[in-house]
Amino acid sequence: MIALFTDFGLEGPYTGQVKAAIWREAPNVPIIDLFADAPSRRPMEAAYLLAAYSDVLPVGGVFLAVIDPTVGSDRPGVAALVDGRWFVGPGNGLFELLLRRGAMVETYVIPAEAKMISPSFHGRDLFAPVAARLAKGVSPRDAGLEEGPIPRFADWPDDLAAIVYVDVYGNLMTGLRAGALPADVSLAIAGQRLERARTFSDVPTGMAFWYKNANNLVEVAVNCGRANILFNQGIGGAIQIVPQTP
Amino acid sequence: MIALFTDFGLEGPYTGQVKAAIWREAPNVPIIDLFADAPSRRPMEAAYLLAAYSDVLPVGGVFLAVIDPTVGSDRPGVAALVDGRWFVGPGNGLFELLLRRGAMVETYVIPAEAKMISPSFHGRDLFAPVAARLAKGVSPRDAGLEEGPIPRFADWPDDLAAIVYVDVYGNLMTGLRAGALPADVSLAIAGQRLERARTFSDVPTGMAFWYKNANNLVEVAVNCGRANILFNQGIGGAIQIVPQTP
Amino acid sequence: MIALFTDFGLEGPYTGQVKAAIWREAPNVPIIDLFADAPSRRPMEAAYLLAAYSDVLPVGGVFLAVIDPTVGSDRPGVAALVDGRWFVGPGNGLFELLLRRGAMVETYVIPAEAKMISPSFHGRDLFAPVAARLAKGVSPRDAGLEEGPIPRFADWPDDLAAIVYVDVYGNLMTGLRAGALPADVSLAIAGQRLERARTFSDVPTGMAFWYKNANNLVEVAVNCGRANILFNQGIGGAIQIVPQTP
Repeated sequence: MIALFTDFGLEGPYTGQVKAAIWREAPNVPIIDLFADAPSRRPMEAAYLLAAYSDVLPVGGVFLAVIDPTVGSDRPGVAALVDGRWFVGPGNGLFELLLRRGAMVETYVIPAEAKMISPSFHGRDLFAPVAARLAKGVSPRDAGLEEGPIPRFADWPDDLAAIVYVDVYGNLMTGLRAGALPADVSLAIAGQRLERARTFSDVPTGMAFWYKNANNLVEVAVNCGRANILFNQGIGGAIQIVPQTP
Repeated sequence: MIALFTDFGLEGPYTGQVKAAIWREAPNVPIIDLFADAPSRRPMEAAYLLAAYSDVLPVGGVFLAVIDPTVGSDRPGVAALVDGRWFVGPGNGLFELLLRRGAMVETYVIPAEAKMISPSFHGRDLFAPVAARLAKGVSPRDAGLEEGPIPRFADWPDDLAAIVYVDVYGNLMTGLRAGALPADVSLAIAGQRLERARTFSDVPTGMAFWYKNANNLVEVAVNCGRANILFNQGIGGAIQIVPQTP
Repeated sequence: MIALFTDFGLEGPYTGQVKAAIWREAPNVPIIDLFADAPSRRPMEAAYLLAAYSDVLPVGGVFLAVIDPTVGSDRPGVAALVDGRWFVGPGNGLFELLLRRGAMVETYVIPAEAKMISPSFHGRDLFAPVAARLAKGVSPRDAGLEEGPIPRFADWPDDLAAIVYVDVYGNLMTGLRAGALPADVSLAIAGQRLERARTFSDVPTGMAFWYKNANNLVEVAVNCGRANILFNQGIGGAIQIVPQTP
C-alpha cells in the first residue's frame, strides 16, 4: 500500500499524474490519499504531522511524501526505512522526526542520474517510480536507491509547540504528542488558556479545549465551533505550555 | 464495493485513514468517494440525501455513512440491511428513510466493547472495520454485529420540503422525490415561483426552474447560473409546493 | 486504466457515481482522477489542456472527458482512438486538438438509442459504460460505438495564446506548447513582459517568469507567489508573444 502526503492541493492534475506514474510501475497497488494539503512549502511543520500519521499504513507500506519548495535545486532525493515502513521524498527535513523516533532506521539517497525528469515535478518523475518499486517489494538497489546518509536537522525540537495543520472543521493540530505532556497540563493559545477534555461532546457548545486527537497529537478545538477563527491562528502559530504549580 | 458518505470534508487525512482501515481488513475492495461533503452535522437532511443515492451501489454493496455530531456520546453504532445493500454508521436517524422505504429490512447494533477506539473517530475505528467485513461477505455476526432494533425518528416526514444539498454548480437538491409530486406542480423558494423543465438546455439562460435530477430528487437550478446565490439559500432552506387549482 | 477529465468539481456525488458506473461494467479497472476542475463549461480551453495531458495514460488507456455545457441537447456523444489511446465524451470540440495532432486517428459516434438515461448526466449514463467497455478491451462495436465523423472546429488555432488552467498554486497554464515557440521568446501578460526560466528555484523570490511546465505547456508563474493574483487573470485571459528583433 502507498500513502500520498503532499502539498499538491486537491485540485488539478498533480496527484492524478503521480498515481498514473505509480500504477505504470506497480499496477493495482492500493493508493491512499492521506494529505494533499499538508503544510504548503513548510517541511518542518509537515515533518511533525507526517510522523504522527506514520501508522496509517501497516508495516511494509510506503509513504510518498512531497513538500518540496526547492524542487529543481540541489537538495537530494532520499528514502528511509523506519521500523518497517518506507518514506520517499526530498531530503529537506521531512523525515527528521521519523528518523529520530524510529528504532530501526536505514537511510538511502536517490542518485541524481542524467534522467529525463522535469525540473518542476520530481514527485511524478523521480519519487513515484521509486515508491512504486518499493511497494512491489524489490530490493532498495533495484528500486534505484543507494545507501547513504541523508540531511539531518538537529536543531528542530522533539515536539513542536506550534500549529502544524488546520483541519476542515477549523481544529488546530499541533506538533506536540499528547503522551509527551503531563496528562492534565493546561495550554494557551493567543493568550487564552485551554484545559484538556476527552472529546467534543464532553464540553459545552462553543467552549474551546485541547484533547488528544485520533492520532495522539495535541489538538485545539471548539465544540460546534471553529478554533482557527476563534483564535485567528494558522500553520506555524505558537502554543504555550502553562507551567504547573506544584 | 463500498461507498463513503460522510461530512469529513475533502481536505485532510480523515477519508484516507478510513480507506486504509478498510483495506487492512478487506484488501483491494473498491471504494467509491460518494459524498465527503454531505450535510455537515445534520443527520436529518443527510438521511434524505443518502436514501436518494442508495442505488449507486449494486446489491451487495456497503455504504459507510458517517454524519456523527455526537461521536463519543452514547448514541449507538448501527447497521442495516435494506433490500440487499448494507448501511453502517451512527444510530442518529441517518438510515431512517432507507428503513422506512425498504421492502426487506434487517437491523443490527454494533456492541460497545471495551475496544481501543478513539472517542473522536468512530468512522475509522468502529465503522470502517465492520463495513470492510460486510463487503467481504462474512456473516453479520462475524462482522461484529448483533441483531436488534435501532433508534427510529417517526416524526420525520416521508419527503422533506427543504434543501438537503448544494452542489458545486450552486444547484439546490431537495429532500422531495420527484415521483411523489404531481408531474407539473409548481414550487416556490424564497417567494419566487418555479416551473418544471426537463433539463438545463430546455430553458433560457439565466432562468430558474425545477427538474427531476439524475437521482430522481426535485432540484432547483438556473441555466448558466447559481441557484444558491440567486435565492440566497443553503442546507435546510424551505421549499413550498404551490397548491394546484382544479 | 481510465482517466477522468471533467468539470464535475471536487465536491459532491458526480465523480463517485461515474466511478461506480465504470466499476459495474469493468470491475477493478484502475481509475485516475486527472482533472475534476477542467475549464468549466469551456470546451475550447479544455481541449488544449486535455491534449497536453494525453500521455498521462499509457497506450491502451481510456480518457473519459466531460465538459458538456449543452448536455441534453442534440450534440452527439463521440469517441476517438488517437495513437492508441481512447477518448470518450461529448462532440463539442473537446477532442479537436487531439484529432489534429494525432498520427493514427479513428472516430466514432455513440448512437442516440432510446435508453433510460438521465438528460442531465450523460457522464454517468452514456459515456462511463462506453469507456469501461473500451478499457476492458472489447471491440468498438461491442462497446456501443459506430464508425463515423465527429464535429470538427477548424477555426480553432493550433496553439491557443490564452490561459487554459489556473492551478492550486496560482500558476497560469496556457494553450501554447513550449516546443512551438522560439526557445527564448519573451511573453507578455496584462502588459507585463515575462522572460523564460528553467524552474522556480532559478529566479528570485517574487519574480514572475514563464517556463515549460511538466507537461510541455507554456506556464506563467511567480516564485513563492501567485501569478493569478499578481496579474489578475483567469481562464481565457490572453497571452502575447513579444516579437523578436533580429
